[in-house]
Amino acid sequence: MNNKTMYTIERLEEDVGLIFKKCGVIDDAAEAIARVISAGERDGCKSHGIYRIEGCLRVLQAGKVSPQAVPEIEAGDGPMVKVDAKGGFASLAYEKGVPLLIERAQTHGLAALVINDCLHFSALWYEVEDIASRGLVALSMCPSYAVMAPWGGKQPLLGTNPFAFAWPRKGVDPYVFDFATTVAARGEIELHRREGRPLPEGWAVDNAGQPTTDPDAALAGAMLPFGQHKGSAIATMIELLAGPMLGDFTSQEALDFMHGDTSLLPRHGALVLAFDPQVFSHGRHRDPMAGGEQLLQGIVNQGARLPSQRRYKARREAVSEGIKLSEEEVALLERLKSKGLDALTP
Amino acid sequence: MNNKTMYTIERLEEDVGLIFKKCGVIDDAAEAIARVISAGERDGCKSHGIYRIEGCLRVLQAGKVSPQAVPEIEAGDGPMVKVDAKGGFASLAYEKGVPLLIERAQTHGLAALVINDCLHFSALWYEVEDIASRGLVALSMCPSYAVMAPWGGKQPLLGTNPFAFAWPRKGVDPYVFDFATTVAARGEIELHRREGRPLPEGWAVDNAGQPTTDPDAALAGAMLPFGQHKGSAIATMIELLAGPMLGDFTSQEALDFMHGDTSLLPRHGALVLAFDPQVFSHGRHRDPMAGGEQLLQGIVNQGARLPSQRRYKARREAVSEGIKLSEEEVALLERLKSKGLDALTP
Repeated sequence: MNNKTMYTIERLEEDVGLIFKKCGVIDDAAEAIARVISAGERDGCKSHGIYRIEGCLRVLQAGKVSPQAVPEIEAGDGPMVKVDAKGGFASLAYEKGVPLLIERAQTHGLAALVINDCLHFSALWYEVEDIASRGLVALSMCPSYAVMAPWGGKQPLLGTNPFAFAWPRKGVDPYVFDFATTVAARGEIELHRREGRPLPEGWAVDNAGQPTTDPDAALAGAMLPFGQHKGSAIATMIELLAGPMLGDFTSQEALDFMHGDTSLLPRHGALVLAFDPQVFSHGRHRDPMAGGEQLLQGIVNQGARLPSQRRYKARREAVSEGIKLSEEEVALLERLKSKGLDALTP
Repeated sequence: MNNKTMYTIERLEEDVGLIFKKCGVIDDAAEAIARVISAGERDGCKSHGIYRIEGCLRVLQAGKVSPQAVPEIEAGDGPMVKVDAKGGFASLAYEKGVPLLIERAQTHGLAALVINDCLHFSALWYEVEDIASRGLVALSMCPSYAVMAPWGGKQPLLGTNPFAFAWPRKGVDPYVFDFATTVAARGEIELHRREGRPLPEGWAVDNAGQPTTDPDAALAGAMLPFGQHKGSAIATMIELLAGPMLGDFTSQEALDFMHGDTSLLPRHGALVLAFDPQVFSHGRHRDPMAGGEQLLQGIVNQGARLPSQRRYKARREAVSEGIKLSEEEVALLERLKSKGLDALTP
C-alpha cells in the first residue's frame, strides 16, 4: 500500500462533488459529474476517472461551459425524449432524461434520448450499463473532436466517436462494451505522452499523413480508425446520427467551437437508444434473456473473454477494499477542493 | 462483349421472377425476391446477384422455406412494426413492412421494423438505400450462420452478421455502407473456392483454430471478425439485437435448424431501424442534411472514398448499357426458367 491512500467510493464521490461545487457548478450537476468520475476510478478506468477533473475545470475556466445550466426536457408521450443541456456538462442532462427514456422504451419497445449542447467526457459504458441494469438494452454514441482521418484520407476530420452497447443479464453484470472508433482512445495517447512512452504502430499518422509512434506527433496529426474502412464507416455513422441528425455539431464543428483546443472537453450532442426485449419478443414464446445467455456462455465456453470483465473485477475490489489513490492524486483532490479553479496550473 | 449477353434490368427482373414462380413461390414473393437479386446484379454486386438464385431454390427443394407464405403484419400506432414472415423469404416481408416503418418514423422520429421467421439472403444495402431514398436514416442488421469465432476464441459461434447504414443526400446517391462483421463476407470465401483461389491471410482459421488461406479449410473452420475485439463485439451486439431480442434465432440456432448445411439460406429474424432527421433536429435551426453534406464532402475532399461508389457506378452503366451476363449465367437462367427445381444439380 506504499504511497497509496484508500478512499471509499462514497468519499471520492463527495470530494469530487465538492470540487465542482467550489468551482461554481450547481449542486445537482456537480453531484452527477462526481458519480461518473468516481465510477470510472472505482472501475479502474483511469482515463475516465479523476484524470478528467482538470479537463472539466479548464473548460469552466475558459468560460466554455455553463456551470449554472439547468437541463430542459422536451418530451411528448412518444418514444423521443429531448434534453437541452444548455451548454452544461452532459451528466445531469443524462440523469434528467434517462427515467423518461426507460419509461418510453417500456411503453413503445424502443425510445431515443437526445442530448443537445452538452459538454461531454464520454464515459458511455456508465450510461448503457445503468440502462441495462433496469432490464433494457442500450446503445449510446456521440461525436468528439476531429482527430481521426477517414480510411484512405490523411487529415483529421472524424472524432474518436465512442460507441457503447449493453445487454441485461440476470444475476450477473450486464454485457457491456464501450470503445472508441479509433484504433485507440485519445485518452490512451494522452497517457502515453504523459508517461513518455511511444505508441504502438498503426495508431496514428503525423501531420504529413505518415505513420508515427510519437504521441506528440500523433496528437498534432491524425488518429486512425479501427478495422480499416469498416471502422471508418462506423465512425462516420456516429458523426451523422449523433451530430447533424440531432441538429448538433460534428466533431469538426466541436473542434472549431473550442478554437482547436482539444485539452478542453468538447461541446456537442449525444444519442442514447433503449430497447425493451420483452416488447420486441412479445408473442414469440422465446425468452430473450435465455437466448442471450446461451450466446454469451458460448463465447466464454471457448475461452474468449466478454468485454468489461476487467472493469467489473476492479469494481469488486473497490467495493470490498476501497479505491487506491496515489499521493499525487490525493494532493490534487485536496488542492482543487480548497482552491477551486485557482489550483489549476496555467 | 465476347460471350456476354446484355439484359435490361427489367428483363432480368422478369426472368428471375419467373424462375421463382415456376418453383411454386407466390407471385408477390417471387417478384420481391427478383427485385433484390436483379438490383444486386445491376450494381455489380455478384455475391447478391443471380449467384443467389440456386441457394434460394435449394432451400425450397429442402422444404425449409414456405413458398406460399403470406407475411402477417402486427402494428399498433406506435413506433414498432412487426412482420411475421411465416417461414417465407425475407423480401416480401420487408416490402410489406417498410411503408409502415417509414410512416411511423415520420410520426415518432424513430421506428423499428422487426421481421421474424424469414429466409434471408442479406442484401441489406438494398433495404437501407430504399429507406434513405425517402429522406430517412436507416440501420439494418441480422444474424446469419455460426461461422465466425469470437475474438480470442477458436470455434464458430457468431454469424457474418451484416450491418448496413444509410444517410439520405439531396440530389446524389445516399451514403450507404453494408458490411459483414467478419473480415470478409462468406460469399467472398465461396467465390474464392469456386475460382480455386487462396484466401488472403487473416480471414479465417481451420477447424483446429489455426490460420488458413484454404477456402475449404476456412469453410470447415471459422472466419475471423474485422477489427479484432471491436468487430467481435459488434457481431455479438447484432446477434443479441436481431436474434434473442426479437424472440428469434441466433446464428448457432439458425445453423442447427438447417442441420449444419450452410449451402441453404438461413432462417432467422431481422431488425431495421429508421430515423427521421427532421424530427430529431426539430427546433434546432440547423439543417441536418447540410450538416451531413459538410461531413461527407470533408471525406471526399481529402481523397478518401465514400462506400458504395463502385456499386453506384456499376448501376449507372447497367442503366445506360444493360447488365452483362456470361454464357453460363444465361444458360442457368434459361434452364431454371424452363425446368424449375428439376434443373438443380443434385
